[in-house]
Amino acid sequence: MKNPLLVVGSVALDRIETRAGKREEILGGAATFIALSACHFTPVNIVAVVGRDDFADEHVELLTSRGVDVTGLERVEGRTFRWSGVYADDFSSRTTLDTQLGVFESFDPRLPQNYQGARFLLLGNIDPTLQLKVLDSVSDKCFTATDTMNLWIDIAKEKLIEVISRTDLLIINDEESLMLTGKSQVAVAAEQILKMGPTSLIIKRGEHGAYLFTGDTTFFAPAYPLPDVIDPTGAGDSFAGGLMGYLAGMGSTATSDIKKGMIFGTAIASTTCEGFGVEATSGLDRPAIDRRYEALRKLTAID
Amino acid sequence: MKNPLLVVGSVALDRIETRAGKREEILGGAATFIALSACHFTPVNIVAVVGRDDFADEHVELLTSRGVDVTGLERVEGRTFRWSGVYADDFSSRTTLDTQLGVFESFDPRLPQNYQGARFLLLGNIDPTLQLKVLDSVSDKCFTATDTMNLWIDIAKEKLIEVISRTDLLIINDEESLMLTGKSQVAVAAEQILKMGPTSLIIKRGEHGAYLFTGDTTFFAPAYPLPDVIDPTGAGDSFAGGLMGYLAGMGSTATSDIKKGMIFGTAIASTTCEGFGVEATSGLDRPAIDRRYEALRKLTAID
Repeated sequence: MKNPLLVVGSVALDRIETRAGKREEILGGAATFIALSACHFTPVNIVAVVGRDDFADEHVELLTSRGVDVTGLERVEGRTFRWSGVYADDFSSRTTLDTQLGVFESFDPRLPQNYQGARFLLLGNIDPTLQLKVLDSVSDKCFTATDTMNLWIDIAKEKLIEVISRTDLLIINDEESLMLTGKSQVAVAAEQILKMGPTSLIIKRGEHGAYLFTGDTTFFAPAYPLPDVIDPTGAGDSFAGGLMGYLAGMGSTATSDIKKGMIFGTAIASTTCEGFGVEATSGLDRPAIDRRYEALRKLTAID
Repeated sequence: MKNPLLVVGSVALDRIETRAGKREEILGGAATFIALSACHFTPVNIVAVVGRDDFADEHVELLTSRGVDVTGLERVEGRTFRWSGVYADDFSSRTTLDTQLGVFESFDPRLPQNYQGARFLLLGNIDPTLQLKVLDSVSDKCFTATDTMNLWIDIAKEKLIEVISRTDLLIINDEESLMLTGKSQVAVAAEQILKMGPTSLIIKRGEHGAYLFTGDTTFFAPAYPLPDVIDPTGAGDSFAGGLMGYLAGMGSTATSDIKKGMIFGTAIASTTCEGFGVEATSGLDRPAIDRRYEALRKLTAID
């Protein structure tokens, strides 16, 4: 039996505007994209919180239809986390218009009984204090990947560094790596971050691909050259979900499998950009993912 | 005997300021970087112009010591082309402080007798009218690569499109590809540019690597993750020079050799960034280039 991937993060309702159009009240959140990406490789156990009354059953059904265990998806009194943002026409930046934490404000991640004994954990971008709480409730043998963001580097750096020290695979973007270390080149930032604890570090560069640093190895997974981008929301989470889903499904933490996982993650992340919210991602099947994986492998093949 | 690479472009004296320091009156110019890069693979025939009195013999000697034929390097009355620029601390942009064309203003590229019959030509970034003149003086069988820049898209688009229609391999950067086509994604811009005539198109993305599009194939050559950047001036020219030098040396225009040439070009371009002007590039030898080539190949290898 495959190892399930334990995912802790946000489930949200998004309002998104890009040059391709607008969408309101669509399913979003890091844990959602992670789960819908990882599910192609292994069962997913999700820990998140949504509002009891404003979160549609069809969203829950979408997750369960993809093999996601929602025992840990709490439905509590109050409103679901809402995020609203607008992207620049060239997608080089985005502006958050509104954030309403709702029930996410008092999110207290708890692992249901049937999630115990996790061997693969992906900590989505949430408050480092909550990430630490989750780390306390899993075994030291659990392979942990952590995502984070600039906000936590700004306001909770000490806690974040504690999380990083207990993380096996840290996944951040290039700006965050420079911000975290005060360095000006990612190759130097990587060296310093590896000294903080993780055995592997992935530095994402959005449409420019992602680096893996392990100390021994530097690997680069190029992005897929998309003819069109509709909405990049969730691409980073899809990447992390595909990668960690692949590792959990293989039961492997070998560097060669991390590399393959990054390419699977890139394959799904590129698809995520081709629709609003989970539109394109939720339509994926394994053959489509494998085709894009092959296209990505060919992208750097000489013969 | 290897095919010489015919190179037409600027030779300049640069004043450069980066966060790493300042240099005045240092050797620069596209043809210089191209020649010092291509020379590792094949003899180079250079066509350029410098001032008779202000261009040091040691610069000419550097070129000849690397197997560059300088018969076509005219030394005329007047001042050598001078460029002065300052880079942003993160190297994401640069500002031209001053341009003094000097003798370059009346540059009239002429091919010496011993350059006739060229089979490989690299047209550096100069006025498309001059590029057309060079194209008129070589055989249709000559494999031609062309570099250009946003200035010519702005002020000489029609002539530039004529040059492109007579080019086998166009080398431009991502912004220029979008500007030239009015598209928003490089994958779409590439499709349109290939319809203008070239059989191959390279879209450079600076520190993010370079794409090759041939219609049949899309290839990506990642950049080398440098621990430090001193001065990126000439990196694009070093890339083009390494690529075209490799093809000329191999006597090949096969897609697989274009891919290898891009990796050799990337290897040299990354070294160019590690010193001011030609400092680092001119210290290279073939074993050092091969080592970086191998590091670049490993960057995308899974096992």
